[in-house]
Amino acid sequence: MKIYNSPAAPNPRRVRVFLAEKGVQVPYEDVDIGKAVNRQPEFRKKNPMAGVPVLELDDGTCIAESVAICRYFEELHPEPNLFGVGAKERAQVDMWNRRMEFNLLQPIADTFRQRHEFFKGRIRQVPEYADIQRLNAEDSLKWLDGELANRKFIAGDRFTIADITAMIAVDFGRVSKIGIQPDQKNLARWHAEVSARPSAKA
Amino acid sequence: MKIYNSPAAPNPRRVRVFLAEKGVQVPYEDVDIGKAVNRQPEFRKKNPMAGVPVLELDDGTCIAESVAICRYFEELHPEPNLFGVGAKERAQVDMWNRRMEFNLLQPIADTFRQRHEFFKGRIRQVPEYADIQRLNAEDSLKWLDGELANRKFIAGDRFTIADITAMIAVDFGRVSKIGIQPDQKNLARWHAEVSARPSAKA
Repeated sequence: MKIYNSPAAPNPRRVRVFLAEKGVQVPYEDVDIGKAVNRQPEFRKKNPMAGVPVLELDDGTCIAESVAICRYFEELHPEPNLFGVGAKERAQVDMWNRRMEFNLLQPIADTFRQRHEFFKGRIRQVPEYADIQRLNAEDSLKWLDGELANRKFIAGDRFTIADITAMIAVDFGRVSKIGIQPDQKNLARWHAEVSARPSAKA
Repeated sequence: MKIYNSPAAPNPRRVRVFLAEKGVQVPYEDVDIGKAVNRQPEFRKKNPMAGVPVLELDDGTCIAESVAICRYFEELHPEPNLFGVGAKERAQVDMWNRRMEFNLLQPIADTFRQRHEFFKGRIRQVPEYADIQRLNAEDSLKWLDGELANRKFIAGDRFTIADITAMIAVDFGRVSKIGIQPDQKNLARWHAEVSARPSAKA
């Protein structure tokens, strides 16, 4: 198997950090998204949505969508557990991971995508939507700071995939100058902690 | 347990159809989203994101996010299977469900949310983004019609949660006059089939 990767994009990093936490090594093949190789017909056979990462299995099956790829490796390598144990905890982790996707990573990504030169001609841009999503992302950071007053990690008292999604979102915010504010002490404490894990460098 | 519901909104219908497929009955309590009861502090204790549906367990735990709720019931009632069997199929179903969420349900929902009077004052609207998401939704329907030339259902040859997400998306498109085009025969065949299942009325 191998994973089609891009070193600078946020979504492939979600999978790389996840695999680093698992201690699993999978060969990466970098796709030149700067030259839009991912938007060519050849790559769209692997993922019609044109995104990276994509996991290609030895039988040729291609799995796209970062969380679907992570879930696949969670089943193959259950420890350390990153999706929760038992129906209730798994539902809670999925809920928190989705909140981090829809309410943090997505507004932060839209702030970049809907206005930045890189996506000009690649997607239909609405720069005003970038500005609104910036405000939504800032609201989410403020809210999340309050949530983290009561617990150590995003979904509870241990590290899960929800922390990976949130860390990648916060880090990707830098390119759009969205970040943790000085008074957001809980968020800063959490971010320092997850960033200190060896997996964060993946 | 009970589920906070809204009869007209698309996301609660995802859970209702899923539970109907499972043959599982859970009491519903309707939340008046027309009066924005879901945006009041009392409801935000259950779901800070203010959305429905929310599953409240007997111990008071609240699970929000439609797919997280469905996943919980999949574990409690594994048959009929709707999330896939084995690591590979589960990853594929998750991938297809996410594609239906990000590339179909979301653009269709944004077309409504970013322009419609109902969301005025509820969210920060960018009407131009509604227009762009309409085009993106129409592109996705065209692409999906091609995909369905080769198989019976969204994620393969059997009905899964990805079909539920896609059906709810297509049906919700009606309020924005987004729909299956006359030449999209595969999509029409699929939609007729999933709509004929008793669960579609849930």
